[in-house]
Amino acid sequence: MKINGQHYRTIWLAQDGWRVVVIDQTRLPFRFETVALGSAEQAADAIRNMVVRGAPLIGATAAYGVALAMRSDASGTALEAALALLGATRPTAVNLRWALERMRRVLVPLAPAARADAAYAEATAICDEDVALCRSIGEHGLPLLREAAARKPAGQPVNILTHCNAGWIATVDWGTALAPIYLAHDAGIPVHVWVDETRPRNQGAALTAYELGAHGVPHTVIVDNAGGHLMQRGQVDLVIVGTDRTTAHGDVANKIGTYLKALAADDNGVPFYVALPSPTIDWTIRDGLADIPIEERAGREVTHVAGPAEDGEIHAVRVVAPGSAVANPAFDVTPARLVTGLITERGVCAASSEGLAGLFPDLARGVAA
Amino acid sequence: MKINGQHYRTIWLAQDGWRVVVIDQTRLPFRFETVALGSAEQAADAIRNMVVRGAPLIGATAAYGVALAMRSDASGTALEAALALLGATRPTAVNLRWALERMRRVLVPLAPAARADAAYAEATAICDEDVALCRSIGEHGLPLLREAAARKPAGQPVNILTHCNAGWIATVDWGTALAPIYLAHDAGIPVHVWVDETRPRNQGAALTAYELGAHGVPHTVIVDNAGGHLMQRGQVDLVIVGTDRTTAHGDVANKIGTYLKALAADDNGVPFYVALPSPTIDWTIRDGLADIPIEERAGREVTHVAGPAEDGEIHAVRVVAPGSAVANPAFDVTPARLVTGLITERGVCAASSEGLAGLFPDLARGVAA
Repeated sequence: MKINGQHYRTIWLAQDGWRVVVIDQTRLPFRFETVALGSAEQAADAIRNMVVRGAPLIGATAAYGVALAMRSDASGTALEAALALLGATRPTAVNLRWALERMRRVLVPLAPAARADAAYAEATAICDEDVALCRSIGEHGLPLLREAAARKPAGQPVNILTHCNAGWIATVDWGTALAPIYLAHDAGIPVHVWVDETRPRNQGAALTAYELGAHGVPHTVIVDNAGGHLMQRGQVDLVIVGTDRTTAHGDVANKIGTYLKALAADDNGVPFYVALPSPTIDWTIRDGLADIPIEERAGREVTHVAGPAEDGEIHAVRVVAPGSAVANPAFDVTPARLVTGLITERGVCAASSEGLAGLFPDLARGVAA
Repeated sequence: MKINGQHYRTIWLAQDGWRVVVIDQTRLPFRFETVALGSAEQAADAIRNMVVRGAPLIGATAAYGVALAMRSDASGTALEAALALLGATRPTAVNLRWALERMRRVLVPLAPAARADAAYAEATAICDEDVALCRSIGEHGLPLLREAAARKPAGQPVNILTHCNAGWIATVDWGTALAPIYLAHDAGIPVHVWVDETRPRNQGAALTAYELGAHGVPHTVIVDNAGGHLMQRGQVDLVIVGTDRTTAHGDVANKIGTYLKALAADDNGVPFYVALPSPTIDWTIRDGLADIPIEERAGREVTHVAGPAEDGEIHAVRVVAPGSAVANPAFDVTPARLVTGLITERGVCAASSEGLAGLFPDLARGVAA
């Protein structure tokens, strides 16, 4: 997507043809800086320190990290070392392991002299495939926005509420939940996005607001408490969020607070959609509440908030009374009954085992109903 | 209630017998400081600058402000000037106008020489009545916690979720939503409070957490997004919140985000109670969604968060991407259908016109069903 009129992906090859450039997401939204990665170690650091984040982008960065390693030493020992180094950066990221396994499968059978070129080609393919996947999600979601626009009085935008960041900077391009919105905006459909701040890490206020603003999409940031009120007042036409993991029955794990917005949407007759690439469907589990473990993250994310102060420096300020305990569950599960539809790269389906099996008969085979 | 073992109200007479001492709530939770008010001007400043906050405490401070004015000049002109000065500090606070009207009714008929003593006596009565009102709310809510405790395995605390600050520091003592919790704690019933951070002004993380901690009540601060997840996991036994305004049919206006917690409570079979003194019932309106205007507050409350940084100084840091628009509705309306019961100074009733009329036949007379 665009940043101030110029097209970007989140990861690309430098002009020298071998280094890998990424946007330093730890500086967003207050500074736009890029970093050139010249080794597997630098790629691993970028993942570990969240210079890059978002499951698809982490996978792409790891794949390029393997390519960087092969460029300096294409031996089997070096390959295994790079895979181990990169695999240890973010232990729970599914895409990371998937991308590294794919690189291993391609590279192990090759002669060392052929590995570097093959690794760059495979990493590039992983990026291009992710772009195509996200764009397909966008194209399947676009008619929902087009239909919503047709129901609005002329000149009034379609109001979409989103939570957290499921945008292009979490992927290679387009994003998941935001892909239909970018396509609609680029197609001239008037859209306006309510952006949930998304405490505790504020990915909405910082990242979603940044990327929508940079591309020129009208949006308004609200605190996470406000969405229900806006729905009661008819100011939200539909909700679109991403997901970290969807069960075979359509339960959706996503950033903490998603469930509350799904309840409000249900209570006010507002359609609630979840956008997802099929690799995030976990066909082995059915009941999201029973089967998806919820990560408890560091309390400091709750007790402190960081950002630039009047002096221009980034400060972390304490917002919780000293001595008070905090809890920080990072995700919640939205039951399928509250989800109007799942927007996937193959189309939109009901959030149910039947809906998912209809779109993905090849993947759903053998899943117990 | 107690601060580190010592009993406090939020407002009291200084040892000199005439100045009025309040806790400087702009310093909480990071510093505990008191301020002695020696004139109506100082009382007005304290209200305007939110040194004191919470409708009952604002009313009490204004009443004492009138007494301070009468002490230096008890003429009719001075009385009207003090009423005007204090009345202009927070235009929307209902208790403020109510307290000033009460002072006017008492003082106008008196000879100037009698006004100062009468004003102090009336301000003290207003405080004592508020303490009694809040304590009654606590006593009527206490059985709900006692019954919840009886249903828990031995030794496990009753988990109560609350939103915003409806505690003793918003009143003269006890608070509204927190009054039953303090009474339960003091009676030896094990309680634990989930404290919603309550963005954008963080009254939960700052004030509710502070006062619970100072009194020794176990509690845990969570982001506003987390409550639904906790209810799904059975970690909330009941919800108690306060209210700014309740309609004659039991709809409840309270801090933005309350409605989302009421939806989650309803979805998970968790009782949802609202604690309120009867003066906050607006008998003239029925449909909260249609009839209660919602204040839109300054965007800076959303874009910036303030607190002490590592350098010990208070900084306001920006958390929203530069250039992004923000919206800041301050309250929402929870429909009566989501409210399990209203805890008032006369008892607990259903959130309905019948429920309210049953407890308050004297006040409900003439209200259209």
